[in-house]
Amino acid sequence: MLPAQNPQSEAATTRSTPAVRYEPLNGAPVAGPRLGRLHTPHGVVDLPAFMPVGTQGAVKGVEAERLAQTGAQMVLGNTYHLAIRPGERVVAELGGLHRFAAWPGAMLTDSGGFQVFSLADKMKLDERGARFRSHVNGDLVDLTPERSVEIQHALGADVMMALDHVVALPCPRETVVEAMRRSIRWAERCREHADKIGASATQSLFGIVQGGLDAELRVECAEELVKIGFAGYAIGGLSVGEPPEEMYRTIEATTPSLPAERPRYLMGVGAPTDLLEAVDRGVDMFDCVMPTRNGRNGLAFVPEGTLRLKNSRFQTDDTPLEQGCPCPACRQYSRGCLRHLLAAGEMLGPMMVTIHNLTYYQRLMADIRLAIAEGRFAELKAARLAAWR
Amino acid sequence: MLPAQNPQSEAATTRSTPAVRYEPLNGAPVAGPRLGRLHTPHGVVDLPAFMPVGTQGAVKGVEAERLAQTGAQMVLGNTYHLAIRPGERVVAELGGLHRFAAWPGAMLTDSGGFQVFSLADKMKLDERGARFRSHVNGDLVDLTPERSVEIQHALGADVMMALDHVVALPCPRETVVEAMRRSIRWAERCREHADKIGASATQSLFGIVQGGLDAELRVECAEELVKIGFAGYAIGGLSVGEPPEEMYRTIEATTPSLPAERPRYLMGVGAPTDLLEAVDRGVDMFDCVMPTRNGRNGLAFVPEGTLRLKNSRFQTDDTPLEQGCPCPACRQYSRGCLRHLLAAGEMLGPMMVTIHNLTYYQRLMADIRLAIAEGRFAELKAARLAAWR
Ligand SMILES: [Zn+2]
Ligand SMILES: [Zn+2]
Repeated sequence: MLPAQNPQSEAATTRSTPAVRYEPLNGAPVAGPRLGRLHTPHGVVDLPAFMPVGTQGAVKGVEAERLAQTGAQMVLGNTYHLAIRPGERVVAELGGLHRFAAWPGAMLTDSGGFQVFSLADKMKLDERGARFRSHVNGDLVDLTPERSVEIQHALGADVMMALDHVVALPCPRETVVEAMRRSIRWAERCREHADKIGASATQSLFGIVQGGLDAELRVECAEELVKIGFAGYAIGGLSVGEPPEEMYRTIEATTPSLPAERPRYLMGVGAPTDLLEAVDRGVDMFDCVMPTRNGRNGLAFVPEGTLRLKNSRFQTDDTPLEQGCPCPACRQYSRGCLRHLLAAGEMLGPMMVTIHNLTYYQRLMADIRLAIAEGRFAELKAARLAAWR
Repeated sequence: MLPAQNPQSEAATTRSTPAVRYEPLNGAPVAGPRLGRLHTPHGVVDLPAFMPVGTQGAVKGVEAERLAQTGAQMVLGNTYHLAIRPGERVVAELGGLHRFAAWPGAMLTDSGGFQVFSLADKMKLDERGARFRSHVNGDLVDLTPERSVEIQHALGADVMMALDHVVALPCPRETVVEAMRRSIRWAERCREHADKIGASATQSLFGIVQGGLDAELRVECAEELVKIGFAGYAIGGLSVGEPPEEMYRTIEATTPSLPAERPRYLMGVGAPTDLLEAVDRGVDMFDCVMPTRNGRNGLAFVPEGTLRLKNSRFQTDDTPLEQGCPCPACRQYSRGCLRHLLAAGEMLGPMMVTIHNLTYYQRLMADIRLAIAEGRFAELKAARLAAWR
């Protein structure tokens, strides 16, 4: 193995024996809709792909077998939550996150950075890393780039994310610049540590582009990360309250600076509209709690938009959430019954709307992939946006 | 149709065209282990049978397809809960309880009596019926024998239960006698009303034997109900805190007074031990929240007894709840993972332990039926009781 202090050489190592590999299927455009496949040690993921969020080792209310039936091929696990409870050593002792979560398909873990900045108590941050108190039991936790990689290595997901320094927007440009440059230094430390501890043989590391809503900073960050060399590139720090157009503009400014032959992952996004707009700008992968969190609250995604099932107009509605949807909710229950289950506080209500929403998202991604393959993505996008308006 | 004021003739009518029919398979002993089948408009139920409890139109945390996979053939719905929310008219408008709950198999509804006595606020009771305030919204509700039958007819279950007057034990013998005799009068009113409104063509009515722990009163009640004539007979008012031996003794005193060619249903029972003891005394049907309620609390039934999964000794236990169990929990998750899900407050924990427990109960009933068929019930009972001790 080459010396860890030479990131360019390390990148070369990754290229020769990557744990995950991107296969382009429509000529790998640098921007614009991309059709591809992500080959991982746990199966192939058709791209563009949507990853359901399994925060604590489970997508809330959905067993793994049912999750696979939605069409999901890759699932996200949260490093922060799992490190705090049950602890990555417990997960490792139980066979790693795939076995633990009974998920035989591909998995990705985030770095924990986002949760540290949003959930942790008394967070202190310096160049070394973040120190904070667990939101579960108040224990003091240390999260450095190296520690993040070690946790993710113990969890064993196919894709690990580099630890980044997340800032809340809006904030002064100087703060964005500092955080972005620190994120690059941390990404390099993650890259080196992943090789050092032998994680790179079975796991790939993605770098995360930061830089707020500033196109110049995004480009600078992307270029620096590409010099270090990662198996894939994420766009982080978006969908945090900015207008959608700002987000789309920022994506559009970033993707051309990313290598065409590497997957691009837009973190924490989004609504169905966002997925279409981001695919149109060259994004391959997504994750979001929207289908699951909304599902638990009784909001169902359907071809016409959304249904707020607690509304009394559904009381005697004997139709399924969506005609033709193959999910367990639509196969079995009427809107009227789902409304009752939600109103009565029955677990089955959140369970069923969640699985419908996840199925809806996966069917949308399948429609997107088919449309790209058939050269009619623009038509699909226009038709969907019109229907949702 | 014969005049409704003649219960004996009505019984004759029921016998000629019963909505449910008991088929004996081991000679219909009047007491002792009985093998049989209950033929209903929604399929055959192998007896002895355990019915999971679907209080509000759903077994908590279990979708109908998964429930069928546990082996359950008949499910119980709660008249009181469904009448209050969403209301029996809403259920009827959504196609009846079978369609509403997506349960194509057999169903039974209770009379609402037990819940009125245990859950309702400001309950007032007289010969006419019970008046109380809903525990959900405080609405004034009237539950007479006639109204109970009308609600159950609107819900449309295959088996309806007569409204009975439940008393809390221990209480003076005189109170037990009064409530038992009133229950008989109410059962007769239920019987007449079921015929009057045309429910008997598609639904069967079971009478409920009351009489506390007094063998004489139980026999008196059973004999009076048999004179009225029901499609089946329940034993009610047990498992309310009395020692198990008292319960077994009371069952033993009751079943010989019931017709051998009618199914017997022990309401609200019970633990696996109770099922074996009651089958041994001639009971055919059971319902209980034990597998579901305990499941939600992380208590799993296994061949050796029970596992309290929140116990830290399961933290790194990578074995399934029960080796060889075909349920989704045992197929997918380790005890360590289930412990984590319960500790982390993930819905999936209660969901999975519940479905395992329901599977455990159904497999126990299947073992019981096979043992009766092969003439070795006594051996099975002895072996199981020894293993659980
Ligand atoms: Zn659906
Ligand atoms: Zn099991």
